[in-house]
Amino acid sequence: MTVETLSWLGSLPGRCRLLDQTRLPLEVVHLELDHLDGMVDAIRRLAVRGAPAIGIAAAYGLLLGIQHSRAGDTAALMEEIAGVSKTLADARPTAVNLFWALERMQNRAAREARSGVSREALLAALLEEALAIHREDADQCARMGEYGAPLVPDGGTVLTHCNAGALATGGMGTALAPIYVAHRAGKRVSVLADETRPLLQGARLTAWELSQAGVPVTLITDNMAARMMALGRVQAVFVGSDRIAANGDVCNKIGTYGVAVLARHHGIPFYVVAPLSTFDGRMPSGAGIPIEERAAEEVTEGLGRRIAPPGVPVENPAFDVTPAALVTAIVTEAGVVEHPDAAGVARILASGRAAG
Amino acid sequence: MTVETLSWLGSLPGRCRLLDQTRLPLEVVHLELDHLDGMVDAIRRLAVRGAPAIGIAAAYGLLLGIQHSRAGDTAALMEEIAGVSKTLADARPTAVNLFWALERMQNRAAREARSGVSREALLAALLEEALAIHREDADQCARMGEYGAPLVPDGGTVLTHCNAGALATGGMGTALAPIYVAHRAGKRVSVLADETRPLLQGARLTAWELSQAGVPVTLITDNMAARMMALGRVQAVFVGSDRIAANGDVCNKIGTYGVAVLARHHGIPFYVVAPLSTFDGRMPSGAGIPIEERAAEEVTEGLGRRIAPPGVPVENPAFDVTPAALVTAIVTEAGVVEHPDAAGVARILASGRAAG
Repeated sequence: MTVETLSWLGSLPGRCRLLDQTRLPLEVVHLELDHLDGMVDAIRRLAVRGAPAIGIAAAYGLLLGIQHSRAGDTAALMEEIAGVSKTLADARPTAVNLFWALERMQNRAAREARSGVSREALLAALLEEALAIHREDADQCARMGEYGAPLVPDGGTVLTHCNAGALATGGMGTALAPIYVAHRAGKRVSVLADETRPLLQGARLTAWELSQAGVPVTLITDNMAARMMALGRVQAVFVGSDRIAANGDVCNKIGTYGVAVLARHHGIPFYVVAPLSTFDGRMPSGAGIPIEERAAEEVTEGLGRRIAPPGVPVENPAFDVTPAALVTAIVTEAGVVEHPDAAGVARILASGRAAG
Repeated sequence: MTVETLSWLGSLPGRCRLLDQTRLPLEVVHLELDHLDGMVDAIRRLAVRGAPAIGIAAAYGLLLGIQHSRAGDTAALMEEIAGVSKTLADARPTAVNLFWALERMQNRAAREARSGVSREALLAALLEEALAIHREDADQCARMGEYGAPLVPDGGTVLTHCNAGALATGGMGTALAPIYVAHRAGKRVSVLADETRPLLQGARLTAWELSQAGVPVTLITDNMAARMMALGRVQAVFVGSDRIAANGDVCNKIGTYGVAVLARHHGIPFYVVAPLSTFDGRMPSGAGIPIEERAAEEVTEGLGRRIAPPGVPVENPAFDVTPAALVTAIVTEAGVVEHPDAAGVARILASGRAAG
């Protein structure tokens, strides 16, 4: 079984229980949040991270932000919902799931408000919506796992970057879902996990959750991936995504683009696994995706002690963009887009809408 | 001016003064060694590192190993020299300069012994030889700097990996020498330094020594190099080498090969700067170069706290091999080998021997 990243406790007012990922792998600590500030802080400092998990956290965060509301009527409550949504949306600038989940919650609120329900009924509807977002995410992970499992090489090794596993979602993960499904089905598969500097999600999270699930995993530093590929030790790459543009360009954790270039050079398939909610149809290409620049201290001090001379300038982009041309296929809950381009992305989005 | 990495103090018996690079960049601590064990330990734990500096350290280490000898005659001393050389050669398996320097010291000892000199005269000759190795290295660095400076883009940015600077040599460095020379000549050049996991030589050493010398430097994690290249922020790559095979394959710090693949993908020139002593004419290609596998703890605990789950398997190769086909040119103290191959390597080695 895979680990549980977050859950809603009770009804309303309730709490959001959240595995604090900044404490892994050495400590398994759960936060129980009952106010908005705690959730904004958790999202900002990456206690919860991974695009789908951030979407679910934002939906729960919206509940936390309004469950103690003293708004006298739904109009006043709707205003509070807009304000809370804005606060949550500002917590991380890149993950489209964050905006997607908040928009979905706001749309539901607007529908309920228009139908003239009470303030209490509106809150209850929003809890229902948040739980649905969570449940659908878990279902989507399972479907991505099923679609992606045939791409997992039997007897081979998959390289992955960052953490796009159970810890990044409300289910069994995105990039790791096909590996979990293949592993359970009896395929012999092992994983090479890039440690993923600066925040070491690969070392701290991917190595941990795969070990918990009994999937063989070996840790490498990011700069060892090329050598492993040259030695024939990598048969496929599986990564997640934080946002996919309409043309199939993939925004994901910094370092993903480099892995994609290396995979192409070595003739190794490069798979992206992401739910349809990750696609941003309004973004024509990856060039327009805003890339979050995070604090220099994550590079210079994020590892327990200062590792660089004081004052030295540092770049710290949290993401990069992999052109669609380097992507062998994108695996979604609605099927696989091979050699993704604008037409393929449009097709999968349409089929997803039809199914939804 | 560039920093001084190591020096010999006094005559015989004397001491080797060595900047402890494991303490940088936060502390500038010098070791003063007067016994062999201290030098073996310093080489093994990377207090002194970088192929040329290791060669010089080995020569001084040989002196430390025999300067307190009680050998009664030169024959007994020659046996001790062989034993001490073996001990030093075993400290690091990959750097050919280590073996080269020890062989040169042993050859000098053999010549002196054959000519029938006293034990004291033999020791004095070996000190002379060690100082010559050091002086010649500094001269070679300066010449590599002059040959390489025209390749440094004016107004551009050079990416470098690991530390192949003053701290890696007895002079102004190998990969960084052209940058120092160009900078002093008034070229506007800035450097992007890969932090270079696991041991962070880029963050700790390259960022430090360039800052000391007033060269603008920005620190990135290894996995950001691809994005910087895609953004047009890198005009050339300069790296050093630990061993170059007869066909021009370049063994260097882990991660170098990945940078070379990325540079090729982005059409960015990839330069290797290394003295002729780095070439191993007896090694036909990079495939045969032994790659040192270092302790897993360098990856999982080398940064001040444990960053991976206990027990997770780790790979930790210290080096990788870049095929000659990915190298734009090799800069040596005898000139530049463009598009290196077996013929080009043979030519530069011959011209070096003719000059020497």
